[in-house]
Amino acid sequence: MHKKEISKAVINRLPRYYRYLGDLLEKDEVRISSKELSDKMKVTASQIRQDLNNFGGFGQQGYGYNVEYLHAEIGKILGLENKYNIIIIGAGNLGQALANYGDFERRGFVVRALFDISPELIGTMVRSAEVKPMEELEAFINDNKIDIAAITVPKASAPIIATDLVKWGIKGIWNFAPVDLNLPKEITVENVHLAESLMKLSYRLSRKKKETE
Amino acid sequence: MHKKEISKAVINRLPRYYRYLGDLLEKDEVRISSKELSDKMKVTASQIRQDLNNFGGFGQQGYGYNVEYLHAEIGKILGLENKYNIIIIGAGNLGQALANYGDFERRGFVVRALFDISPELIGTMVRSAEVKPMEELEAFINDNKIDIAAITVPKASAPIIATDLVKWGIKGIWNFAPVDLNLPKEITVENVHLAESLMKLSYRLSRKKKETE
Repeated sequence: MHKKEISKAVINRLPRYYRYLGDLLEKDEVRISSKELSDKMKVTASQIRQDLNNFGGFGQQGYGYNVEYLHAEIGKILGLENKYNIIIIGAGNLGQALANYGDFERRGFVVRALFDISPELIGTMVRSAEVKPMEELEAFINDNKIDIAAITVPKASAPIIATDLVKWGIKGIWNFAPVDLNLPKEITVENVHLAESLMKLSYRLSRKKKETE
Repeated sequence: MHKKEISKAVINRLPRYYRYLGDLLEKDEVRISSKELSDKMKVTASQIRQDLNNFGGFGQQGYGYNVEYLHAEIGKILGLENKYNIIIIGAGNLGQALANYGDFERRGFVVRALFDISPELIGTMVRSAEVKPMEELEAFINDNKIDIAAITVPKASAPIIATDLVKWGIKGIWNFAPVDLNLPKEITVENVHLAESLMKLSYRLSRKKKETE
């Protein structure tokens, strides 16, 4: 479908385009000029044109972009025309937060179950998903077409669980544990390292403090 | 202190160095060669040397790196020799997950309080921090030296709350709401956009699927 290799920087920007266009769509906006989109997103209009040209460009001279069309096309590029079945390993606060986030489901990511070792959590419901015991994990993956597993367990258990998940057929891992998972190349891993994000914040805060001292 | 402007790519890699060195320190490792560090981190040894040279370099020919020293020095660069007082706006699952994460406190980020509008949550404790009503937010910031506010409220309220926080003197914002906050330049904002992370995962998953079809 896409012949050209698209740069990582462009991919990193696409979800943000998608989010802005989704917001415009909610406000029933029909079209937007690249100038307006540029002002909103604080990205140059030429950057926007360049980014979208990677996918054949969707704009029309003198018209701008059709919001609904562009939103749908970027959605397709991002693979959002598919539905994804998700399981969440670890039903603590973070796992529950992910399961409770309705926006994911609206975009096609459906949480099918959570898994935990805690007897108090097992059997409880988070939105429409049940917390199940870890012993049922393999069978559940076999019986349901699970695409993505979110890992929200402590760093000591995360690599072991990830290896099992891959063995049982999981292709995509959304990793929240503060550890890098060394998995086969064909497995897609997306990391959310919260502590590292906080350190970037403290770096920038302390830099600014030193500059003004 | 740092004369040279350090590239964003290097900054983005520093927390990961810090994490790996912290893991080595926990295992009582005294020193590590750049080759070993490179194997562990799956980064070339020359990349590591180059990155660390930005800060004067910490290695010694034939010895490698002293783990404790390098960990401490990178910590200083990241501003981790300071203590940071944090408040969390929104005491739902995500806010509670952040407050419960003991690793943050170990690194000097201390959660002083959470704030919420929900009567059921107000007055409850998350670890050692109390959930307080939003009405007390301004006074609490005035009375305590708060450096960072984490925002875990829905996207509709996030920009309004962020503007108030800045007015009341907050300099660092850790934003989890799926919206970009337009704040004065002197304010440091670090975003964690979970939906965008999930879209990057679905992009890569759907690409791989297309390639194998």
